[in-house]
Order: sequence, then structure tokens, then C-alpha cells
Amino acid sequence: MSLTAMTVKDFTEKLASDAPAPGGGSAAALSGALGSALVSMVCNLTAGKPKYAAHEALVRDVLTKSGELTAKLLEAVQRDTDAFDAVIAAFGLPKETDAQKAERSVAIQAAYKAAVASPEATAECCLAVMRLAESLVGKSNANAASDLAVGATQAHAGLKGALANVRINLPSIKDAAYTAEKRAWMERAEKEAGELLHSVESGVARQLLS
Amino acid sequence: MSLTAMTVKDFTEKLASDAPAPGGGSAAALSGALGSALVSMVCNLTAGKPKYAAHEALVRDVLTKSGELTAKLLEAVQRDTDAFDAVIAAFGLPKETDAQKAERSVAIQAAYKAAVASPEATAECCLAVMRLAESLVGKSNANAASDLAVGATQAHAGLKGALANVRINLPSIKDAAYTAEKRAWMERAEKEAGELLHSVESGVARQLLS
Repeated sequence: MSLTAMTVKDFTEKLASDAPAPGGGSAAALSGALGSALVSMVCNLTAGKPKYAAHEALVRDVLTKSGELTAKLLEAVQRDTDAFDAVIAAFGLPKETDAQKAERSVAIQAAYKAAVASPEATAECCLAVMRLAESLVGKSNANAASDLAVGATQAHAGLKGALANVRINLPSIKDAAYTAEKRAWMERAEKEAGELLHSVESGVARQLLS
Repeated sequence: MSLTAMTVKDFTEKLASDAPAPGGGSAAALSGALGSALVSMVCNLTAGKPKYAAHEALVRDVLTKSGELTAKLLEAVQRDTDAFDAVIAAFGLPKETDAQKAERSVAIQAAYKAAVASPEATAECCLAVMRLAESLVGKSNANAASDLAVGATQAHAGLKGALANVRINLPSIKDAAYTAEKRAWMERAEKEAGELLHSVESGVARQLLS
């Protein structure tokens, strides 16, 4: 059964079990999906309201994009667990002959790169969710201001969790140019995400005071 | 159907809908539950391992506590939505006579306080999860270091989301002593949570480098 077809309670219990997957990578993707869903909710509570008519086009556009991101992030919940399982499977390949050893080594390296690509894609989606959340500050239903803040917070946590999963896999990858590129990308992503979160939080705080 | 008995996918879609609840409060509680479940997972991947025998008692104790916190936070997913619905119900009470108006006003104030108590309890649970995560740094399975970091990150996001929900309800409460107490408590909780997150993150980063 796919992880997102499990009940919320069963998924949480499976996460808590001694199986290494699903683990932090899948939890991070789900966090991003919750954030994206909250952005959609804020749009749904804003669209069609005369008070926000000036922002109708923006809100409709954000709603389309957040829906796509939610779907991608829900897929990533499963993909991250599959990517982890693939690393374990590669380690299980035969290593009796030199040819087998070489093949196994190539398979392990490929599996680790896939196990980096999965949280990397999660992080990019979370960043996209945060950009959408920021675009709605002051232009969406004020009654849902806390939902917008929680949406950005969940996407930010999803990004940070995804980066933790990139970071733990990088030392196993021997391609130095690849790991250097990933480290530079992580630094940029974290910086932008921090700025976006600050912008949403301060914008929402102003809205709650006004 | 209770929210946690829904599939992960259906819950996320319901969150995205134009129904104001479930909203950020339920998402924050689920984030805390994911964090708590990851702390349990780290314990389950550590307990019984000879390498961590010196920390066995701590790990067993944390596992018991994180299991209880996960259960509480999963209950809070539903409770937060119920608390929101109760506010809406109180606003729907009759207000034709003076007696009805007075009763309605009392009911609204009580419902708002319950709608603060719910995320307040969520935030306290998230803080407890973060304290447990911090107690495991350097004393739990190093292969699950990123899961420990993600657990703390999810609990931190849950706390922040819960506080956003306290914050949006406080202006509707007329009891000034009550709101002042809550604001002071929020400041303390945020400060402690920030310190705990920093401590877990820097501890895990050291572990990944060693």
C-alpha cells in the first residue's frame, strides 16, 4: 500500500517504528504537502470574495500552482522511502567477483545520487510553496492569516528536513563536483527560505495588528 | 470520520478545501505528531544496540514518552478542528433578547478560550518532543541523525503553527489578565524552542562531520 493511502494515524505509527523508512525524508515531504495544502486553503477562502477582487487573478494562479505542488509533494512521500530502500537493495548486491564488486559500487553510487535527488526535489517544491505563500501576504483573506503563516512554516520545515536528508547522503557520494554543487545549492536554498519565512511571518504579524 | 482515520491524501485534500477547518491548527498538531514519531523511530533504531548500551535507559524512557506525546498530538489534530467549529457554533446562538445576547457573548468567550487552550496544549506537547529530541543528541543511532534533526524541526514547526493559532484568537478575548498571561507564556515557549532547535541542529551537524 502506498504511504499516502494509509490513514494519518497508521502512517504516523509506521514512521515511529524501527523500520528506517519511512523516515525523515517522507515526513519532510508530507510537511511540505501540508504547507502547500494550507496555501490552497487560503486561496479557496479568498477567491470570489469582493473584498479581495483586486487580487483574484493572483489567487487563482496561486491555487493552480499550489494544487500541483501538493500532488508532487504527496508523491515525494512515497518516493523518498523508495529511494532509501533502493540504497539498501544496492548494498545487498553480490560482491564475490571483481566484476560484481565494480557493478555493486556503481549501483550504490547511483542509488545514493537518487537518494539525494529525491529530497532535493522536495526542497525545491517547498521553496516554491514558500514563494506562493509570500505572494499572498496582504492579498488574501485576513481571517486565514494564521493558516498562511502555518503554511509557510510547514513548507520551511519540509525544506529543512529535505536538506537534512541531502546532507546525510552526500558524504557517501564520491563525485566531488556533484557534492560541491549540491552544497552550494543547499546554501542558496536555505538563505532564500529563511528570507521568505521572515517575510511571511512579519507580514502576517502586521495583518494581525491592523 | 475522525481526521486521523482519513488517508494522508484525503486529509491533505480536506485541508486544502474552502472549509476553514481543518486548518493551520490541525496541520500544526500533525506536524508535532510527525516529529514525535521520528523521535520514537530514532529510539527504536537505537534500543538494544550494543554500541549505545550506555544510553539504553534514557532511550527506553524517551520512547515511552514520545509514544504518549504522539498519541496526544494525533488527538489534537481532531480537537483543534472541533474547537474551531465550537466558536462558529457559539456565533450562531440566538441573539434576539437581552438574555440571549448575554448568554451568546459568554458562550463565544468560552469558545475562544477553548480555541486557545487547544493549540496551547499542542505547543506544550511540541516543546516536550523537542526536549526529548535534544536529550538524544550524541546518544542515539548516528545513522538516524537526520531523522532526529527532522523530528526536532517538525516539532518546532508544530509549536510555531500552534502559537500562530493562539495569537490569532487572543484579540477576540476580553479577559486582559488571561491574554497577558498567554502572551508571556508564548514568548517563553518560543525562546526555549529556538534554543532547543539550535542545540539539536548543531549537535547533529557535529555528528555528521565526525
